[in-house]
Amino acid sequence: MSVLIVGSTALDSIKTPNAENPRLLGGSASHAAVAASFFGPVKLIGVVGDDFPKKYLELYRRHKIDLDGLQILPGKTFHWSGEYEANLNNRRTLLTELGVFETFTPTLPKAHQAVPFVLLANIAPALQLHVLDQMRQPKFVVADTMDLWLNIALVDLLRLLPRLDGFVLNDGEAYQLTKEDNMFAAVKKIHKLGPKYVIIKKGSHGSILSGPKGFFLCPAYPLSTVVDPTGAGDSFVGGMMGYLAAAKGSIDANLRRAMIYGSVTASFCCEGFGLTRTTAIKRADIDRRVKELEKLTKF
Amino acid sequence: MSVLIVGSTALDSIKTPNAENPRLLGGSASHAAVAASFFGPVKLIGVVGDDFPKKYLELYRRHKIDLDGLQILPGKTFHWSGEYEANLNNRRTLLTELGVFETFTPTLPKAHQAVPFVLLANIAPALQLHVLDQMRQPKFVVADTMDLWLNIALVDLLRLLPRLDGFVLNDGEAYQLTKEDNMFAAVKKIHKLGPKYVIIKKGSHGSILSGPKGFFLCPAYPLSTVVDPTGAGDSFVGGMMGYLAAAKGSIDANLRRAMIYGSVTASFCCEGFGLTRTTAIKRADIDRRVKELEKLTKF
Repeated sequence: MSVLIVGSTALDSIKTPNAENPRLLGGSASHAAVAASFFGPVKLIGVVGDDFPKKYLELYRRHKIDLDGLQILPGKTFHWSGEYEANLNNRRTLLTELGVFETFTPTLPKAHQAVPFVLLANIAPALQLHVLDQMRQPKFVVADTMDLWLNIALVDLLRLLPRLDGFVLNDGEAYQLTKEDNMFAAVKKIHKLGPKYVIIKKGSHGSILSGPKGFFLCPAYPLSTVVDPTGAGDSFVGGMMGYLAAAKGSIDANLRRAMIYGSVTASFCCEGFGLTRTTAIKRADIDRRVKELEKLTKF
Repeated sequence: MSVLIVGSTALDSIKTPNAENPRLLGGSASHAAVAASFFGPVKLIGVVGDDFPKKYLELYRRHKIDLDGLQILPGKTFHWSGEYEANLNNRRTLLTELGVFETFTPTLPKAHQAVPFVLLANIAPALQLHVLDQMRQPKFVVADTMDLWLNIALVDLLRLLPRLDGFVLNDGEAYQLTKEDNMFAAVKKIHKLGPKYVIIKKGSHGSILSGPKGFFLCPAYPLSTVVDPTGAGDSFVGGMMGYLAAAKGSIDANLRRAMIYGSVTASFCCEGFGLTRTTAIKRADIDRRVKELEKLTKF
């Protein structure tokens, strides 16, 4: 089955202590869509300006990402610029130019409205709601978010949560939302806001699923060198949704393995700037690391 | 087989935002010995003053801990007092009175010198070396440490490391020692200092083993309420060594499972002040959580 992914489609200028990379393909939807594309068909909803490099459109196409829902409008593509500290855990935003994203309110093509798996990747909750409103009885809806929306759009986010099957956020955001340091206590509070499945991302410490079948402790694939973590969380949730949409059987039967696939896809993302490493791998590379992760966690 | 454990035997006064508990049984060797005692025979090396409550000697005895190597000297028992912040991750030491520990240089009873499994629990590296010097061809020697020794006794610690089979430290200490934020990079540097097995404890994020068979990602048992994390690291390494000493087969064949048992034993430690919760459980309680952890990590 297909996955519909809405989120930001952006140009990222990323500075680390070792390198500077201007105008890479970025944005939550780009990372999530490429990650999901390893597993099955993906439909992208987004907007770019007329400055958007053709090579990036070709990149999407090479990954067989359906671009019927990608608008190209006169103006500038959303541009984000950020700088990482030496340990790559802390980053600060240097610049955010929304460009054509500022007024983006997509009307979904008919074919898109019937897609069963919906990933509302990180973007304003109002826009996530706007897209969800157009979907016809989706089978499984997951949203990601970020600290910014907890700060400036909490009311919209709280309207969105009861309409989700799954909600994905990182440990810092979970604390921000619940004021609980303990993530197993935090998820209990988040369930009360609506979602049946809550997934807390903990970066290199892996992630936690809480759902009707209890907890799942999902490891991160061990990397001794991280080049650029930008988009790792988007890759995680994209890979997870891609795997889920392609798998036979129930959500409960597949979700743990889907998280493992997401986790491994995210590990590749961290090994290069932007999407450079992720777009250089094949499905077999992902399968190999999943097998390794099985060995690394067996006892 | 037996485990010999040397470390601190102390009285801990522990303050958290919710409670104050004076003069609990504490110290690295107390926590490690009780944890190890669930799996097989333990010989304790330590010293206490004549103010040491009899009920704590009885507690050791109830756990069948061999006290032939525990000296009771005129003077005061080592007393540590600390205060935790609301999130229990940060603590500060309010008071350290070494008491009879100040001049402790134990001579090991003959029977103790032939014990095959040796745990040099957290204590001054010079004292760890002093005990190790008296051991006759031990089968497996593991040491734990703390930030204090990295600060004030690094030379001693660096002399100890080549003589260990396994070295256990937490992520903060691993960074302090190697200046590597990435724990998979840090372990590589630590191996070069001597130990064949390096274990990095990451608190609620579990632990990492690096050894001849590669990495093992060991989960922590999920707790939604932590009462007092004091001694959790000691319980982890104590449970691990207790399990290892009792298991048949090679170290490599047993070490992963030993870490899981250590991790679960540590989870009980966190659920009460001092040793109150750990001393209230039975081996079957540990086995039950190990089974749960199998389910929580299966994919």
